[in-house]
Amino acid sequence: MEERMKKQMAFALEIDKVKNIFRQTHLSSHGRNENDAEHSWHMAVMAYLLKEYANEEVDIAKVMLMCLIHDIVEIDAGDTYAYDTEGLKTQKAREDAAKERIFSILPEEQKEEFTALFDEFEAYETAESRFVHAIDNLQPLMLNNNNNGGDWREHDVTAEQVYSRQRKTKLGSEQLFEITDRIIKDNIQKGNLKK
Amino acid sequence: MEERMKKQMAFALEIDKVKNIFRQTHLSSHGRNENDAEHSWHMAVMAYLLKEYANEEVDIAKVMLMCLIHDIVEIDAGDTYAYDTEGLKTQKAREDAAKERIFSILPEEQKEEFTALFDEFEAYETAESRFVHAIDNLQPLMLNNNNNGGDWREHDVTAEQVYSRQRKTKLGSEQLFEITDRIIKDNIQKGNLKK
Repeated sequence: MEERMKKQMAFALEIDKVKNIFRQTHLSSHGRNENDAEHSWHMAVMAYLLKEYANEEVDIAKVMLMCLIHDIVEIDAGDTYAYDTEGLKTQKAREDAAKERIFSILPEEQKEEFTALFDEFEAYETAESRFVHAIDNLQPLMLNNNNNGGDWREHDVTAEQVYSRQRKTKLGSEQLFEITDRIIKDNIQKGNLKK
Repeated sequence: MEERMKKQMAFALEIDKVKNIFRQTHLSSHGRNENDAEHSWHMAVMAYLLKEYANEEVDIAKVMLMCLIHDIVEIDAGDTYAYDTEGLKTQKAREDAAKERIFSILPEEQKEEFTALFDEFEAYETAESRFVHAIDNLQPLMLNNNNNGGDWREHDVTAEQVYSRQRKTKLGSEQLFEITDRIIKDNIQKGNLKK
């Protein structure tokens, strides 16, 4: 096998580990914890399905790919829960080291491409990255809402914390933020989110 | 929420069930069984990564979406193992019924779009569908090879059976068939595949 294909296949095998990175979110109908591969798959389908609600026109191939690869760094860095204030302090350093190790398995120009796409996601500056973040917020909110807010109750999350994260959904999609807002208000009323 | 968005969100929640459809394939390093959401995620990333090896030029957004949705019908139809001759006889009828029920949750024109994409995948007639099938074959082969052929040994699969399925990889990618061929020969030699 030529060197280039060998590197690509090594990367393809390496990312299998994403399936063992578990998140705080639970599957619908009070299921088990979700892993990063499942979350990324779900996001990519939802992004395609809901693309008409993006605030700006998006390159949907780029959006889907960004959904698919945005959590690969967690193979090394682990999942950082959205409301884990200690973990959030070291998240960037852990993810930068992971990005360097994992994407270096690829042929040089694919390493650059995947790194640039991950950096673009993180920077929140393009239409695509803002829309992907909106979906990254909406997908677990939808599952958690289906589970009667179990993940929030387990971690004593407040409405303010959820709003501070979810408010950014507006940057990617005003219309998806409307669903988000309704879900949050509903869960405050049910007592699933503390005021 | 308007009717259209309600349908889209109902579909987004419904497909969460794909994460509970487990396959015969095991994760690398002798891991647990893989589910359809993980498999579809892995395929979509691999398709992007390896797109240069497609025999014909492909629309990569279409390829990725086809990877992502091709197993949604298994929510109702269940996974049919590639070498389950009894299951294969009823597969089409089961999947057609599932396709009708599940895609009907969507707004009409998205139902038509997803149905057409699934049918295109099944028909093996376009460059995209042939390439997606090549990836659908390569991904479990790669994992199974990493696991010393455990899935083949468990089901007493013969080299002939594997070739009869994997030969079609050639239609999507001559170059990926070369890796496939090497992996199969290697596993015959190791005694993981019966002659």
